[in-house]
Amino acid sequence: MGLPSNSSLNLYEKYKKGSKNLITDVNGVRVGNVTLQKENVNTGVTVIFPHGGNIFRDKVMAAAAVLNGFGKSIGLMQVEELGTIETPIIMTNTFSVGTAATALTKYMLEQNKDIGITTGTVNCLVTECNDGRLNDIRGLHVTEDDVFKALNSPSEIFEEGAVGSGTGMCCLGLKGGLGSSSRLLDVDGEEYTIGALVMSNFGSTGNLTIGGEHIGVRIKEIQDMKKDEGSIIIIIGTDIPLSERQLKRVAKRAAISLGRTGSYMGNGSGDVAIAFTTANRVPHYSHKDIIDTRMFFDDNIDKVFEASVEAVEEAIISSLYHAKTTVGYLDKEVKGLRDYL
Amino acid sequence: MGLPSNSSLNLYEKYKKGSKNLITDVNGVRVGNVTLQKENVNTGVTVIFPHGGNIFRDKVMAAAAVLNGFGKSIGLMQVEELGTIETPIIMTNTFSVGTAATALTKYMLEQNKDIGITTGTVNCLVTECNDGRLNDIRGLHVTEDDVFKALNSPSEIFEEGAVGSGTGMCCLGLKGGLGSSSRLLDVDGEEYTIGALVMSNFGSTGNLTIGGEHIGVRIKEIQDMKKDEGSIIIIIGTDIPLSERQLKRVAKRAAISLGRTGSYMGNGSGDVAIAFTTANRVPHYSHKDIIDTRMFFDDNIDKVFEASVEAVEEAIISSLYHAKTTVGYLDKEVKGLRDYL
Amino acid sequence: MGLPSNSSLNLYEKYKKGSKNLITDVNGVRVGNVTLQKENVNTGVTVIFPHGGNIFRDKVMAAAAVLNGFGKSIGLMQVEELGTIETPIIMTNTFSVGTAATALTKYMLEQNKDIGITTGTVNCLVTECNDGRLNDIRGLHVTEDDVFKALNSPSEIFEEGAVGSGTGMCCLGLKGGLGSSSRLLDVDGEEYTIGALVMSNFGSTGNLTIGGEHIGVRIKEIQDMKKDEGSIIIIIGTDIPLSERQLKRVAKRAAISLGRTGSYMGNGSGDVAIAFTTANRVPHYSHKDIIDTRMFFDDNIDKVFEASVEAVEEAIISSLYHAKTTVGYLDKEVKGLRDYL
Amino acid sequence: MGLPSNSSLNLYEKYKKGSKNLITDVNGVRVGNVTLQKENVNTGVTVIFPHGGNIFRDKVMAAAAVLNGFGKSIGLMQVEELGTIETPIIMTNTFSVGTAATALTKYMLEQNKDIGITTGTVNCLVTECNDGRLNDIRGLHVTEDDVFKALNSPSEIFEEGAVGSGTGMCCLGLKGGLGSSSRLLDVDGEEYTIGALVMSNFGSTGNLTIGGEHIGVRIKEIQDMKKDEGSIIIIIGTDIPLSERQLKRVAKRAAISLGRTGSYMGNGSGDVAIAFTTANRVPHYSHKDIIDTRMFFDDNIDKVFEASVEAVEEAIISSLYHAKTTVGYLDKEVKGLRDYL
Repeated sequence: MGLPSNSSLNLYEKYKKGSKNLITDVNGVRVGNVTLQKENVNTGVTVIFPHGGNIFRDKVMAAAAVLNGFGKSIGLMQVEELGTIETPIIMTNTFSVGTAATALTKYMLEQNKDIGITTGTVNCLVTECNDGRLNDIRGLHVTEDDVFKALNSPSEIFEEGAVGSGTGMCCLGLKGGLGSSSRLLDVDGEEYTIGALVMSNFGSTGNLTIGGEHIGVRIKEIQDMKKDEGSIIIIIGTDIPLSERQLKRVAKRAAISLGRTGSYMGNGSGDVAIAFTTANRVPHYSHKDIIDTRMFFDDNIDKVFEASVEAVEEAIISSLYHAKTTVGYLDKEVKGLRDYL
Repeated sequence: MGLPSNSSLNLYEKYKKGSKNLITDVNGVRVGNVTLQKENVNTGVTVIFPHGGNIFRDKVMAAAAVLNGFGKSIGLMQVEELGTIETPIIMTNTFSVGTAATALTKYMLEQNKDIGITTGTVNCLVTECNDGRLNDIRGLHVTEDDVFKALNSPSEIFEEGAVGSGTGMCCLGLKGGLGSSSRLLDVDGEEYTIGALVMSNFGSTGNLTIGGEHIGVRIKEIQDMKKDEGSIIIIIGTDIPLSERQLKRVAKRAAISLGRTGSYMGNGSGDVAIAFTTANRVPHYSHKDIIDTRMFFDDNIDKVFEASVEAVEEAIISSLYHAKTTVGYLDKEVKGLRDYL
Repeated sequence: MGLPSNSSLNLYEKYKKGSKNLITDVNGVRVGNVTLQKENVNTGVTVIFPHGGNIFRDKVMAAAAVLNGFGKSIGLMQVEELGTIETPIIMTNTFSVGTAATALTKYMLEQNKDIGITTGTVNCLVTECNDGRLNDIRGLHVTEDDVFKALNSPSEIFEEGAVGSGTGMCCLGLKGGLGSSSRLLDVDGEEYTIGALVMSNFGSTGNLTIGGEHIGVRIKEIQDMKKDEGSIIIIIGTDIPLSERQLKRVAKRAAISLGRTGSYMGNGSGDVAIAFTTANRVPHYSHKDIIDTRMFFDDNIDKVFEASVEAVEEAIISSLYHAKTTVGYLDKEVKGLRDYL
Repeated sequence: MGLPSNSSLNLYEKYKKGSKNLITDVNGVRVGNVTLQKENVNTGVTVIFPHGGNIFRDKVMAAAAVLNGFGKSIGLMQVEELGTIETPIIMTNTFSVGTAATALTKYMLEQNKDIGITTGTVNCLVTECNDGRLNDIRGLHVTEDDVFKALNSPSEIFEEGAVGSGTGMCCLGLKGGLGSSSRLLDVDGEEYTIGALVMSNFGSTGNLTIGGEHIGVRIKEIQDMKKDEGSIIIIIGTDIPLSERQLKRVAKRAAISLGRTGSYMGNGSGDVAIAFTTANRVPHYSHKDIIDTRMFFDDNIDKVFEASVEAVEEAIISSLYHAKTTVGYLDKEVKGLRDYL
């Protein structure tokens, strides 16, 4: 739902929002969440499905921008080389990337009997943030079953805030987590959608800025955290036909959204943006050497950049808005933004 | 001088400013300006000298970040490969890059009789923005003599606003140009300086944001420009010992400053940040294979990032503050920010 | 003509050559040369025209790979960002890049009255190598008129060796210069062409390898040069539909060709490969936001890689084969390969 | 041991070899192997230890070059951002990256009780090739215990060929696997070492080239494989003081070694080179902001490039030389090079 209109928080906005104001406004995109919450455990798994079919056989064009590379994702190298995503995208905590990659591999092998036999391997895409403040991250509590569960729960509607992989995340001195938003654009007379989903876990207390207001200062008086060891994963999906190069341009602009909300891309923050389009599909098998694709006329692309920057900004603030005060590992408490409004 | 304290414009600031609040607060750094202004001509040349000695023989460690590569700079490729700057850095208008490169080559050959004879070539660094709105850019009015003049006028004190290469620049719907600022940091108990100089020429009317206030909306009512075909060149100098990798990290964070002032890094904007340190020098000749250098402990580098982001933000706003309403090419008028305050 | 079949030099080859065995076998590609040769002057200008029309209005898709960035080219940054080339590509000596850029700017302004007035600027692409061994490079002998002359002499047929920008170049201890070659491929049942043009100026005496034979050892006994301060510019043109990402993959593989001929990409060698396709055109003006393009099915792209590696390898050896013994600056003599065969 | 002097295979060599002619000639570097071989299983784990101490607390400076990014490594993004390696480097098969990452995480947590509690996370470095031709890769046969075993068996002496992670690898139509080599260099009057270790799994049958001789043609007559779905992981270690930028330069030159042995960096080949130096250590904890480091004078670095290119070339050929004919998955047989000599 993004930021509700009655939230009292005003962002500068130019573009219309999608009906759900979620990344799932992009036709075919689905999200699945598994939340793990008990005693010292505050973690989980979130899965983004670029479309509802077999993603390995029908890949989506994609690109990524590593804004600050203090992160442990797997799969980005091949996205860069081949310009495609061929699995659902997983988000989880840092030390669970291995488990998630193994589970995702098994899931893909199960769905595609040809992988590793008559065709090559598969590039599993797993991203992460460190939820060690509220979660016993050393306990490696995410299991392969948790990942399978998330992989088996794609949905058009999903909660934001302290759920899924966002369960234990902290952001700008507050409780962070999942946030989402979408924007609508007129392209050649038709309506297209651009959506964002973030797992927010970055930033120093005191820096939070909402719609230009530096409200972090107020928060700092009440709640201060030790040095930022955060990160943010930003997923941008769209049905606008963009080339890999253009998707990378879109992904790089997530830095602007970060700047608007109070990040300076701290040393310990793994800030990664991944953008994909459902409008350019690349088949795994093809009888022909040449494939038709479509791209955007770069000279007109500014509206795509602006709408995407807006959607990511709102997704970040929305993640804070929806994340409730949480008590976690060793009884540490991290307050939610709404406690301050 | 940056933004004067009585400017009524308030940026969120954490770090102390240098005594001049200019990039020249970094010991040894100098700036030279040549302004060309008559009838349809509104352009010029700005030179940044990383230090006062022979820069070819005593190079400064450096790196660049291409935030949006719609630009025509020369020299960045070798900065990336070798991690050094070996000439003064020139800023001028887009179509004068060739002339400036030729003049800078001659200047370097004159200073270094060994170049091209007993040693290799020299990597001239020339950057640009398009001042075609206020300047008859097709006229190629910058001459080699103008460049020599700027190369021969290094100064600790220099004007900001519509001077030098900033003479004809426009930014966020207003008159842009040169802006500068500096910040002081405590590093291992000693005071170090980080300074910024920008040539501002980016952004769409309506988007200007100052200290969180979206004042662009007000400006848009009075003055609107056609599509942004801007750019910004950002020079960051420091005496803090940073490695090439770390200088690149600093340069990349200029995107955050852009985000704070209202840019979304538009398609046609060549947004380039160059960072150098006077603390790591690389000799052109060496009897030894191994050279001592110093770097920053990355885990503590956040203060360098933040101070640099602040300095660049202020430099941008300062460029607007100092740039006066200018009438240029075909009698077009572009208003200065102070007409709105 | 590339390497003649009676040259006694045997490269390992899998792919059929084009009828001219030149980059101009790619339909529409033309080359223009101006050679400057007198006393201490051994230099020139070479221009590659991606097609015969207005390149600014009808850009070709392109990408570049900086294999070793010790070079002073201009224009590559925007090729990377926008994935297009919008001017003829110039090659000249290092210190003439400024002059060539200015001349190319004037040429483009003359052809396109809208540039700088009703539309933005133009990204001139100029590459270089250091011919200072045989040429009085400090003399800056290339004039704007020389560049205009080259820009006005596009031809399907052109000489290789010590001509045009290759006039003063040296390579692997021998006389280098221009070399070209082409290969034919079956793509979806039709014949396509991939062509290469190099300006060779790289490598240490002793390392030359031709078809696996290490003949450099023999050359070293007779002729030794001081440290390599070379470079190579590699232009790859094709009519195969490739995306920007794929063109970059092709360009990166020029490193393989370099490895086969005896380069280890020395520190002082500016090794740059630029690849373009005439099959994907990007208009300067468009009424529509979305443009149709075509790409290659990556899983079948190996033949494109191999053919391109072959063409570049032959172009390098061909540049040596055709370059005759030359006496230049201060009466230095550099022998041609054929003196050793 | 690299290529024995009586191997009848002659590479062009300029530099002296280390006493063991293995990467472990670099002081402190160790290698551990676990080989899994039974029925359909032909796989394993190889670990490279950059030094014998606590690598997390005492990181080595490092960089990587992605020559062709069709690969699924984990950890490279942070190596790029921070310029350090902080764990042993693991090589295994593609689908075991997750398991290896989880095991390596547990190993690092065990060794460092502060990780995830009082300090941040840890960047596990795991690389891979696809051994699916000879190994039931879908079976995910590598266990966490296998990884622990390899992590607990560092050794100065290790076998090459079909052992450890190289057990099931194929290369250029032959049995591939592990190969290693080293070179000695005079730097400022002292002897330094550069060593290489590769896991070879790349290339098309027919292309193998050894010392310029195209012996692949002969091999193709006897044994042909379907399309290459290979990869190569190249680890370069040294005790020469190099900066991150310089280590990246060294890593990029592995493409030259690939070119010499018959690769054209095929589409499906994940070709990744990682270079580290034991001479620049970065502490995890530091009381000071500024750290002393050392770099190489770039103008003299060619010998480092050449020696490294030689070492990697020999390591590749050595991997083939030592790898014995292997019968694997579904009774497929892949012949070793020595069957042809």
